[in-house]
Amino acid sequence: MPEIRKDPVTGNCVIIATERSKRPHDFTRPYELKRSENCVFCYGNEDKTPPEVLAWRPQGGESNSPGWTVRAFPNKFPAVTPDGDPVPFEAGISQVMAAVGAHEVVVDSPDHFGSLGRVSDEQAEQVLLALAERYKTLSQDSRVKYIQVFKNSGATAGASLEHTHWQIITVPVMPAAFLAEFAGAKQHQELNGTCIYCKIAADEIAGMERIVEITDEFVVCSPYASRFPFELWILPRKHEADFGCLNKSDLKSLGCLVRRTVRRLERAFNYPPYNLVVHTGPPEKGFDIFHWHIEILPRLSITAGFEWGTGIFINPTSPEMAAVTLREIDPDVRQDES
Amino acid sequence: MPEIRKDPVTGNCVIIATERSKRPHDFTRPYELKRSENCVFCYGNEDKTPPEVLAWRPQGGESNSPGWTVRAFPNKFPAVTPDGDPVPFEAGISQVMAAVGAHEVVVDSPDHFGSLGRVSDEQAEQVLLALAERYKTLSQDSRVKYIQVFKNSGATAGASLEHTHWQIITVPVMPAAFLAEFAGAKQHQELNGTCIYCKIAADEIAGMERIVEITDEFVVCSPYASRFPFELWILPRKHEADFGCLNKSDLKSLGCLVRRTVRRLERAFNYPPYNLVVHTGPPEKGFDIFHWHIEILPRLSITAGFEWGTGIFINPTSPEMAAVTLREIDPDVRQDES
Repeated sequence: MPEIRKDPVTGNCVIIATERSKRPHDFTRPYELKRSENCVFCYGNEDKTPPEVLAWRPQGGESNSPGWTVRAFPNKFPAVTPDGDPVPFEAGISQVMAAVGAHEVVVDSPDHFGSLGRVSDEQAEQVLLALAERYKTLSQDSRVKYIQVFKNSGATAGASLEHTHWQIITVPVMPAAFLAEFAGAKQHQELNGTCIYCKIAADEIAGMERIVEITDEFVVCSPYASRFPFELWILPRKHEADFGCLNKSDLKSLGCLVRRTVRRLERAFNYPPYNLVVHTGPPEKGFDIFHWHIEILPRLSITAGFEWGTGIFINPTSPEMAAVTLREIDPDVRQDES
Repeated sequence: MPEIRKDPVTGNCVIIATERSKRPHDFTRPYELKRSENCVFCYGNEDKTPPEVLAWRPQGGESNSPGWTVRAFPNKFPAVTPDGDPVPFEAGISQVMAAVGAHEVVVDSPDHFGSLGRVSDEQAEQVLLALAERYKTLSQDSRVKYIQVFKNSGATAGASLEHTHWQIITVPVMPAAFLAEFAGAKQHQELNGTCIYCKIAADEIAGMERIVEITDEFVVCSPYASRFPFELWILPRKHEADFGCLNKSDLKSLGCLVRRTVRRLERAFNYPPYNLVVHTGPPEKGFDIFHWHIEILPRLSITAGFEWGTGIFINPTSPEMAAVTLREIDPDVRQDES
């Protein structure tokens, strides 16, 4: 029997359409073959990107040369512009503001054919440390209202280049999606005196039916009102509003856990397209009740007319079934079955 | 210079990334070839669908037999269930309700290789009359809070069957996307004493820069804060909250205009995937200030991590450029160039 479930934070509804229930092998899709030709993110092509803003070269070496493990640089085709002042919206029907901000790329492996799920644990740690360092630097800009850290993997998930990478975009407005989550968290805080995300993490650990992995610092679960089949959240067990406040030890743990979680999806669906999205409080003060977390959205289904019209997602896989499937997968197997 | 534009109704922001500006020929994509094998929506296979709930046979004929021009029946794999009571959500973290509702398919042409843009004007009229008739019938069910009428065209827009069709899904909850539009309309009404959609229609006609077509009854324009490249809205010039209240004459005009508008996209992008979404007030009373309209969302770009994280869509094509392109296309040419 199909169910309507309500997201406990935003109140958004989803339909868990169990009649259409799908198991992993039902999600057939063309495998996105990598080609490697003339990749601007590969060693030797550092001059084809804008100059780097961060790079780690364990063996040393010059800027914008090979030998890096992680490398960040401005996006050559940015969606926002670094120069200008974001003059606030004025009243009226046609409200507009310069899209002032930074748009950076963080390449998380020099291996063109690599994937985040197969990098070494040390590499995974370095990736999160690099993202956090860029996050902190970008948050110094007083024009920045919000920093979106995300990863698109696979062409059908919006990755225009196939070499594994993350992106960071800063915007001069407070995004609606963040405000909706913050409003839900605030309402729960006012009614109950507690953080709703802390409660979700604790409830999921107590119930176990949607848990994929638990570590000392984090919970990985398929959320109760999953919009996407096999959607996963990584929730920190310690309350912290801002991704930029994580210490080195937390970032390293997170890096390993992100890799493990992505690896489960890679093994379950033969490298599915996915979006990995960091949800964080903004750099400015006053949002301490928020609880940063990561959402991983496998793109195994298609958002279509019903979803665009209603905002209600139809999900053919219950999060309980998703969790059972994914927690049985060993994320430490980096070799693919042939 | 990229701009952040704010939707005048919902307040949602989009980035019009003019630096990434794309013209029609930049939107290359694989053409979705139709195969026709064993199509359950074709003549002769009427027994392979659930029994029809509406069908028009100009020459007469038995139910569930060939000879129809438009045919509606319950979806064989419904996302909602017809039986049961939608007991309201209770308090708590895990709120759930039976997804009670109807899920119907309306096949808008017997021609497997047909498309909505190429049907005759008479056929286009019949399609809208059929949709409205089903809408009215479904709105009699007191469990129904909202009726979503939509069309997915093309596999990458979520159409699981390639034979042209529409869908109608009723839900026992008021969808978040409707409530957001209604809240914006209400706020404008309270501040200005007028309907914001009426104002948008009038402003667009006055400004002309985003207009694709104007008729006595409707305006077709690319909206100021378009989320998708070549997004189009069909706005009625007469204020009316509920799609179900349209009279026969309006429905016939609308049918022809929907066909013309879809034909422009078909000709510009060689049958692009798209979602066509009716936005209407709900059947229940109290929503008269709403203004029903249609949104057509060509799926030429990919909604990715940034959009899911922020709710801010990055659109590489300004609506002004989209309107110029589409209004120059003659929608009365039904023949494709070879």
